[in-house]
Amino acid sequence: MNNLHVNGFRFSAVKAGIRGKDRLDLGLIYCEKEAVAAAVFTKNRVKAAPVLLGMERLKNGRIQAVMINASIANACTGEEGMANARAAAKMAADSLGIAEDLVLVSSTGVIGQQLDLACFVKAVPGLVSARDADAGPKLARAIMTTDTVEKTAQRLIRIGDVDVTVVGIAKGAGMIMPNMATMLCFIMTDVEISADLLQELLQKAVHKSFNRISIDGDSSTNDTALVMASGMAGNACLDSAAAPGAAVFEKCLADLCLDLALQIVADGEGASKLVTIKVEGARSEEEADAAARTIANSPLVKTAFFGQDANWGRIIAALGRSGVDFAQNRVDIFFDQVKMVQDGLGLGIQAEQEATLVLRKKAFTVLVDLKNGAASGEIYTCDFSIDYVKINADYRS
Amino acid sequence: MNNLHVNGFRFSAVKAGIRGKDRLDLGLIYCEKEAVAAAVFTKNRVKAAPVLLGMERLKNGRIQAVMINASIANACTGEEGMANARAAAKMAADSLGIAEDLVLVSSTGVIGQQLDLACFVKAVPGLVSARDADAGPKLARAIMTTDTVEKTAQRLIRIGDVDVTVVGIAKGAGMIMPNMATMLCFIMTDVEISADLLQELLQKAVHKSFNRISIDGDSSTNDTALVMASGMAGNACLDSAAAPGAAVFEKCLADLCLDLALQIVADGEGASKLVTIKVEGARSEEEADAAARTIANSPLVKTAFFGQDANWGRIIAALGRSGVDFAQNRVDIFFDQVKMVQDGLGLGIQAEQEATLVLRKKAFTVLVDLKNGAASGEIYTCDFSIDYVKINADYRS
Repeated sequence: MNNLHVNGFRFSAVKAGIRGKDRLDLGLIYCEKEAVAAAVFTKNRVKAAPVLLGMERLKNGRIQAVMINASIANACTGEEGMANARAAAKMAADSLGIAEDLVLVSSTGVIGQQLDLACFVKAVPGLVSARDADAGPKLARAIMTTDTVEKTAQRLIRIGDVDVTVVGIAKGAGMIMPNMATMLCFIMTDVEISADLLQELLQKAVHKSFNRISIDGDSSTNDTALVMASGMAGNACLDSAAAPGAAVFEKCLADLCLDLALQIVADGEGASKLVTIKVEGARSEEEADAAARTIANSPLVKTAFFGQDANWGRIIAALGRSGVDFAQNRVDIFFDQVKMVQDGLGLGIQAEQEATLVLRKKAFTVLVDLKNGAASGEIYTCDFSIDYVKINADYRS
Repeated sequence: MNNLHVNGFRFSAVKAGIRGKDRLDLGLIYCEKEAVAAAVFTKNRVKAAPVLLGMERLKNGRIQAVMINASIANACTGEEGMANARAAAKMAADSLGIAEDLVLVSSTGVIGQQLDLACFVKAVPGLVSARDADAGPKLARAIMTTDTVEKTAQRLIRIGDVDVTVVGIAKGAGMIMPNMATMLCFIMTDVEISADLLQELLQKAVHKSFNRISIDGDSSTNDTALVMASGMAGNACLDSAAAPGAAVFEKCLADLCLDLALQIVADGEGASKLVTIKVEGARSEEEADAAARTIANSPLVKTAFFGQDANWGRIIAALGRSGVDFAQNRVDIFFDQVKMVQDGLGLGIQAEQEATLVLRKKAFTVLVDLKNGAASGEIYTCDFSIDYVKINADYRS
């Protein structure tokens, strides 16, 4: 279990009554000093109030605290929603004794409902006074909605002769096909780094991780990936990609984001399998990505995964409507090491039986080789189960 | 109940053992003379053998018979699949005593399996000798796969002083988001018409019907809409769109296609509701269509329909990722006559209660007004149920 300790950061989580139940629903991330910060937000044209506020406050590349609530997304809430986001942030800032514009808020839950500020008035003082370096795992639980497990990751690297820690906390199980970021992901590190480089490295990491997962093809109004750096590790400041240690930190950040992204897919609503869809032999990365994404989002492919049915016909049918150029009679398809299709034709009963064994695993890779070029791409997805429908037919009731 | 009588046409259906069970699985449509014919086929890059053969044989605009099998799609079957399609068509042609290139074959079912020609050798003579003007409804049952009801439609119009009949038979319940046509649809009429005009009118009708339905966003390798005209009604030949009666026939064909398309959606795999997604106030028809299609294909929207949850937040979130230009604070959303969202904000509990009553109906319309232009478009879809997953997790087993 990750303890999520990182120099300069403290966490807390309380039951604020936002869910109307006896559950943790309000969390705080606090840095002892102004942290260098970078973020990527949803590209959905409909953006939640906390996202709009965050975009505004991140412009100067510094924040000190984030308050996160579950249960209500504060999206499609108009001017009242913006005013509520500002008011909630101000309560936290006042209680923490820091400037208002150093506080972000973040929300996840139902769209179209207003926050009840009374919950915040009551809960914020206790939230602030409970700050603790040990409370990261508790925060990870507080921000869960339909998630069944908390998602955390932790890395230790060396930059020069100092230890640098990077920890991450994420949530998300439905409305997941980020165009830009994912539901909510908070990364804390003690590295000393410039805001510009942090933003650049975060974007690269998100592109290879959160932007490559899809649970249901829906992208949210609240997607946020935020990284805060306290600078307390003592390394020489990473102020450009060429700085000693920048490459190590970049790799670590990318690796941590992918770790969290895969935790999100594996905990996809109702999901029982983590499936990597890899397309090789495409003419371009864009085509490889489009092909992999179309397969990953096909309800027929995903229900076949749930049924443990090595139904490659659905995979090739999805490929055929992906808009990608290929010759049907050159396509090979593998389930892990098992080749099921060669040059567009099925390889028969024995291959199917072996592939069925692969499908019984909790995690496997479907490799589609178009033999049409040198580019490749992959998307991480999950199966589509009866429980997905149950969860989403009942979500608000 | 439609009797599907139309001058010049006879039908039959038999149990050929293709399904391996005691079920109707092979059907025949026969015209007493060469019929003028037009068709639209799937735009999926992966095309089944019978589609490729049909595209070839439709070039001269005349056919006389179509033999249709259920259970095996004859898709992704390579040269052997093409040879089987040709051989099956030849058996039917020989038994009927007509030229081989006047016979089409059509298949629906599992992708990647070869047809067993022995079934055809045994069954075709009986299929041919059973031809009967009364057997249209039986044919409609024979071509069903996961369909739960047969889909037929029938219209009588007057052109000049003669009666003209148009009948249609369709199937399809999964892998339905045609880019071009839908699973299988066969339309028979006794109108006298030129092949060019018939093709033109069919394309128009398909664009407004089969191309506007989506059950699961997957489009098939076998989609076919075919119309055959015996010319035996006795009307003056419709040889151009300006010919007297052409407009009446065009309207009838469009209406019949929409009727069949809606029957397909209403019988979508596991579907309990027929939902029309209408987008108004868009800048262009393309944008209206893209917005409606993104909403119609969202698993979160469709599971909310199944749960009878008036969850407009999911609708506006899908809208936000559709790529369509709009201002969030201008959007209105109605469920039938009930306005739930005005200028991007929910209208509260009473509107939600009234909308919930609408969602309990078997069929309703979601209207999204972008107030951003004068164009509109609609897509017909269904809900996403537990049974959809069950059906598709078990389809081959």
